[in-house]
Amino acid sequence: MPVDEKAFGSLAEVGVRVGVNLQQGQKLVIAVGSLEAADLVRAVVAKAYGAGARDVLVLWSDERSSRLKLETASDEALAYYPPFMAEGLEGYAREGAAFMFIGGSSPDLFAGIDPGRVQTMVRAVQSAQKNLGMMRLSGEVPWTIIAAPVPGWAKKVFPDETGEAAVLRLWEAVAKASRVDGADPVTGWQEHVGALGRRSRLLNGARLTKLSYRGPGTDLSIGLPETHLWVAADQVSGRGNTFVANIPTEEIFTLPKRDGVNGTVTATKPLSYAGVLIENLRLTFQDGRIVDFDATAGKESLAQLIGTDEGSHYLGEVSLVPVNSPISELGILFYNTLFDENAACHLAIGQAVGFTLKDGRQLVTEADFLARGANFSATHVDFMMGSKEIDIDGLTAAGTEVPIFRQGRWAGIFA
Amino acid sequence: MPVDEKAFGSLAEVGVRVGVNLQQGQKLVIAVGSLEAADLVRAVVAKAYGAGARDVLVLWSDERSSRLKLETASDEALAYYPPFMAEGLEGYAREGAAFMFIGGSSPDLFAGIDPGRVQTMVRAVQSAQKNLGMMRLSGEVPWTIIAAPVPGWAKKVFPDETGEAAVLRLWEAVAKASRVDGADPVTGWQEHVGALGRRSRLLNGARLTKLSYRGPGTDLSIGLPETHLWVAADQVSGRGNTFVANIPTEEIFTLPKRDGVNGTVTATKPLSYAGVLIENLRLTFQDGRIVDFDATAGKESLAQLIGTDEGSHYLGEVSLVPVNSPISELGILFYNTLFDENAACHLAIGQAVGFTLKDGRQLVTEADFLARGANFSATHVDFMMGSKEIDIDGLTAAGTEVPIFRQGRWAGIFA
Repeated sequence: MPVDEKAFGSLAEVGVRVGVNLQQGQKLVIAVGSLEAADLVRAVVAKAYGAGARDVLVLWSDERSSRLKLETASDEALAYYPPFMAEGLEGYAREGAAFMFIGGSSPDLFAGIDPGRVQTMVRAVQSAQKNLGMMRLSGEVPWTIIAAPVPGWAKKVFPDETGEAAVLRLWEAVAKASRVDGADPVTGWQEHVGALGRRSRLLNGARLTKLSYRGPGTDLSIGLPETHLWVAADQVSGRGNTFVANIPTEEIFTLPKRDGVNGTVTATKPLSYAGVLIENLRLTFQDGRIVDFDATAGKESLAQLIGTDEGSHYLGEVSLVPVNSPISELGILFYNTLFDENAACHLAIGQAVGFTLKDGRQLVTEADFLARGANFSATHVDFMMGSKEIDIDGLTAAGTEVPIFRQGRWAGIFA
Repeated sequence: MPVDEKAFGSLAEVGVRVGVNLQQGQKLVIAVGSLEAADLVRAVVAKAYGAGARDVLVLWSDERSSRLKLETASDEALAYYPPFMAEGLEGYAREGAAFMFIGGSSPDLFAGIDPGRVQTMVRAVQSAQKNLGMMRLSGEVPWTIIAAPVPGWAKKVFPDETGEAAVLRLWEAVAKASRVDGADPVTGWQEHVGALGRRSRLLNGARLTKLSYRGPGTDLSIGLPETHLWVAADQVSGRGNTFVANIPTEEIFTLPKRDGVNGTVTATKPLSYAGVLIENLRLTFQDGRIVDFDATAGKESLAQLIGTDEGSHYLGEVSLVPVNSPISELGILFYNTLFDENAACHLAIGQAVGFTLKDGRQLVTEADFLARGANFSATHVDFMMGSKEIDIDGLTAAGTEVPIFRQGRWAGIFA
């Protein structure tokens, strides 16, 4: 039984109309992580041209070719990314193009490969696309990520199913988690985005100065910069159009004060980073900096991640997700950050998101970010640390302690 | 039974070592016509990095997405090709990169689509990549084409076989035709290239002024410019490296005198152009220009092709292939020019190939070409007109008539 075409069509439509919110005459770049996402890509191409796209540029990449490159290329070739491609995409972004990422790669893709080589390849792309990455993170450029249930991923999530059955089950889960299983997914999404917006306004009204997390393996205090902003699903691009950068999204997030993080945090889900699974990640912070780290698997990859640059020793994002989100209720470990981050509270190592500061869109340079107490790095990687056993309290500017989460759910005035 | 990996490996190795003859530290661009060519692409990626490639940039395209674009895009979007992509690839070419095309598209891909829309899309690419195309045609840039037996193509060639069996049979035929079925295909290719070179030197020694073709539906006279050169498989790039632009190749070719073609020619095989099959193509020439044309199928596409520009009303290439070439002996209609052109003598509508004139590599502008009696056009499309019933005579500068082909085979001193 093949996957229902309706699933492709609904996810593609939400990606085009809600995700990037493509405008008549706008260009769309689609970066595809796997050739096996072809059916979903085709549905997006048709929806985008149907919405009046000026151009749809599909940049395919092939997982197995990437692995072959890691196995056979010289160090010099590994560290190379075509400058014309980076400059061209940046030019597209400046002209107002939208960017869609169709993810869904196999979590164990690079297992067994020297993490140093993986890091070399990842850094080459990040470094070449630094400006583009900044324009996305700042929200200037409209972008979104949607996920295609490819076989390698499906097999990881449902190891007891045969290939095709695993893909079918993952499609069902992705459709539910992505809220595209209903009759009118676009309207459903508009309502969902509205509900998240109301709660983020409540958090902003509280003007918190500090968050305190307590749970198994976690005793962490996170200061918040005075001008922090809580942000939810929808953003407004530099050209004034609303977009939703993650399909699905359940989170409300802001940034930590760069030097205001102290204590220890233990991840509650494995982190898939550059093709390697990092399990039971634990970080200890002092005045914001990671002073100790550990993991029961993938520790070397974790070391590579933290060693990316000075900024990858600090946090750039704090995100709140209750355990009763639809994804959380599915009870599936997706081995994919896009989904797993929406099942649990999380933090991000690396770059702070400019627009989580008041007037933060204008921030560009490292000095700009540091001056506002925000972190700066070439990387930004989320890890999950929420669970049913996590309590979170907030401290208001007036010195009042207020409950935010109890046992993984919104509490007090936020409930 | 899956396709033998040895077949991928041998074809990939001949493509990298003989086709583009990739040098240590050189960049390689691979343009792929179908996602279903992935196994062959991966084999090429591994061989290219193994040969010391500085970078392997794979530009995938998806046949079904291209068809969806034709069905859903605005006219404006159809006529668009990203300028940064064209400029970037041109820059790669100037830096000395090699280009490999992995073809094998489904012959009926665009059946039922308005040929005018197909032409708009094709012209957008041709026009954007005009300089790059010129650098390839002139031989300045090393390039090659190899073909991947994808299911849509296999089904067309072997309509009575099931999907997988058809692909297997086509792989066998492609491996034989491409001379990669032996134990040491690279050495075999070096010998084959040598043999073609010896016959082209003999033709150049004869200094012919005119060719006369006679066969069913064909009575054609083709003048040759005084400084024409017969060229076979191997060329030398601007940087001095030998390369072989077609895998397979069996042809020896030169250019016609632009205004020296008179009479009628009838194609002996269907022409697959922009996704449409043109059958029983017939052209009538007067002083080089097409003054009448017909076809029993695809006549509208033929009209679009001839109407590309002024130069697409003239011929740019004359090519000799005996009917006892290995491909011809397979007796298979491939519906693919790369193969079918090596089964039969052919002519090309459009751009002349610079290096088929003495010192012709320097020719760039339309004026340059016309001054040498050579045609100039944005297009270059081969059609087959050889058969077991074709006789060809040549007229030497001294006025002697010499037999070149009798009943489709080399004759006289050329036998």
